[in-house]
Amino acid sequence: MKFIHTADWHLGKLVHGVYMTEDQRHFLEQFVELVAEEKPDAVIIAGDLYDRSVPPTDAVELLNEMLFNINVDLKIPIVAIGGNHDSAERLSFGSSWYEKSKFFLTGKLSNQLSPVHIHGVNFYLVPFAEPSYVKHLFEDESIHSHDDAMKRIVGEIEKQLNPNEPNVLVGHAFVLGGKTSDSERTLSVGGSGCVSAQHFEPFAYTALGHLHSPDALKHEKVRYSGSLLKYSFSEAKQEKSISIIEMKDNGEFDLRLRTIKPMKDMREIEGHLEELLDNQYYSKQNTEDYLKITLHDQGALIDPINKLRQVYPNVLHLERKLAIADMKKKSNFTSIKEEGKSEIELFTNFYEEMTTAEFNEEKRLLMVDMIEKVKKEESVK
Amino acid sequence: MKFIHTADWHLGKLVHGVYMTEDQRHFLEQFVELVAEEKPDAVIIAGDLYDRSVPPTDAVELLNEMLFNINVDLKIPIVAIGGNHDSAERLSFGSSWYEKSKFFLTGKLSNQLSPVHIHGVNFYLVPFAEPSYVKHLFEDESIHSHDDAMKRIVGEIEKQLNPNEPNVLVGHAFVLGGKTSDSERTLSVGGSGCVSAQHFEPFAYTALGHLHSPDALKHEKVRYSGSLLKYSFSEAKQEKSISIIEMKDNGEFDLRLRTIKPMKDMREIEGHLEELLDNQYYSKQNTEDYLKITLHDQGALIDPINKLRQVYPNVLHLERKLAIADMKKKSNFTSIKEEGKSEIELFTNFYEEMTTAEFNEEKRLLMVDMIEKVKKEESVK
Repeated sequence: MKFIHTADWHLGKLVHGVYMTEDQRHFLEQFVELVAEEKPDAVIIAGDLYDRSVPPTDAVELLNEMLFNINVDLKIPIVAIGGNHDSAERLSFGSSWYEKSKFFLTGKLSNQLSPVHIHGVNFYLVPFAEPSYVKHLFEDESIHSHDDAMKRIVGEIEKQLNPNEPNVLVGHAFVLGGKTSDSERTLSVGGSGCVSAQHFEPFAYTALGHLHSPDALKHEKVRYSGSLLKYSFSEAKQEKSISIIEMKDNGEFDLRLRTIKPMKDMREIEGHLEELLDNQYYSKQNTEDYLKITLHDQGALIDPINKLRQVYPNVLHLERKLAIADMKKKSNFTSIKEEGKSEIELFTNFYEEMTTAEFNEEKRLLMVDMIEKVKKEESVK
Repeated sequence: MKFIHTADWHLGKLVHGVYMTEDQRHFLEQFVELVAEEKPDAVIIAGDLYDRSVPPTDAVELLNEMLFNINVDLKIPIVAIGGNHDSAERLSFGSSWYEKSKFFLTGKLSNQLSPVHIHGVNFYLVPFAEPSYVKHLFEDESIHSHDDAMKRIVGEIEKQLNPNEPNVLVGHAFVLGGKTSDSERTLSVGGSGCVSAQHFEPFAYTALGHLHSPDALKHEKVRYSGSLLKYSFSEAKQEKSISIIEMKDNGEFDLRLRTIKPMKDMREIEGHLEELLDNQYYSKQNTEDYLKITLHDQGALIDPINKLRQVYPNVLHLERKLAIADMKKKSNFTSIKEEGKSEIELFTNFYEEMTTAEFNEEKRLLMVDMIEKVKKEESVK
């Protein structure tokens, strides 16, 4: 039985102010061709189909079209779950109808955890869910963390699991030890949000979404497929891939990776302005790529961004290599964890990093108030 | 061939700050029972399934559940179109899959106007579309108004229409002469937005949505079903109904109306505070209804709203009957059309009526600027 494992499509994503929908369409059209060529028994999408709960309408149309191509035109079953970026309820609309065409979509976790059977393999669909929701769902007061929640969910699955058949869990979670990048939204503020890989022991393969690198986790049977495209410069050096799994009846499997060339790559380049603007340098590159450029020049430069954009139209981020004297400022961000900052300091850093607005006294007081309320509620529990 | 004509469900609607979702669920559960009893060959929903392009998630879940009950559990075909409140693209997601279960959903107008055939009747689905979209769709520069657009659409349909079969148009439009109420969103600011009923001549029946009264239009073959529930006090005296049409092969039809009792009615009552709070008066009424109360008392009253809410918990609007001296103020609103006010005056009135915020100088200047720009663009054309 052969299936393709993919995840984290993030349709409708904005990267540094640029909508990626056109890039995503270009990529997915090739993906559909790859699927047509491979003729798998199923395509698995492990969450974060969209980048947000209310995606732009062209992302909605793109997802509809691509899934239709795979499921109806190519007649290949699809197994998909909601991720932390998807709206569980909005994604779920219509899923009861899709099943007739073997498109199995579970946007929202329910206590009905019966598997989807495809060519002898049982797929257990575990969409992303907050611990508080799982606690309520199973009326289990002992659930506080993502780890507690996953333990309980797998416990429920094990009640019905046939260990003599190949079982696959499809999930969207942050597995302990996984390597993160800048484009994954933190699952849990304060706590770790982590889930132990041990929970997935009963499964022949665990098809995960959430972390964007295909080798985010070094584990034989518990795997991230990685995201469709590079969605942040921290992923610039990753090689994105599509995982193709051929599973035997005893649960053993072969894994093969295939790559698709994106319309524009996402890369980092650095050097002196003059070097980067030299034809000798840029003629060997795809200058249309999305770029983060770090300039080595010291002192004032006249309008470097516009000069660079004449050669590299898709510069998304420009920065200067800091002299040692400037490094102190920068260290505010890099050493957050070590310094044990207060919540309000952490939030102030976050706000300043994420927005261009001033974090004024009014906003500060609002946050201080909110943090205190949350702490009070926690101490009551 | 028997079909049920309904429209304007407006799931997720807020009326005077109250979410109607619970009322809508109660009503639709009875509607599903009515459908089960009538066993029609199709259920037609002529637009405005949701109240807005991004409805609340419980409205999404409600629509999914009710349509599933009708279409999959009862195995009754559904024909539905998008209205001016729906998002054409969001509503359309998955429609290609639904067709397999005979759930025909057209959220967005396309130039593919082929009909849906159900038991000998041809249904032509014409979702709401802006004239500019229709102009672009048919590359027809002569389209400026809703009337132009509908004329063109029907013209396209006529190219393939078999006049010897019963043909039904399902549309969402404001037909000339139709009676409006306060809960329909204006289709066209400035122009009339009206469509002539004559365009629908080729059809044995035109199943319309948009106007909320079942007798909004006095026409034998072109009919509004009216909205699911009363959605404004201007509809308080309407009797909402479900239209059941039995169509013969020659296109003649019998029309029967059925009513469903809502969980809470929407009514207006008036009198002196003391009267309304008298047990003799209110004991004969359903005091749980949504009420608009007009008090006849003159002079100061101490906290009338809270006194009234102890008896009538769902008072949504309270007003005082104005003495003649106060009527002058009020006339600002009622005589807008006669006085020929400027755009900025009209907008100021609108803003003050719709919000509780002050229409300050900054906002005023912004609007003046915007109105001027629009006017300039118009004069360029």
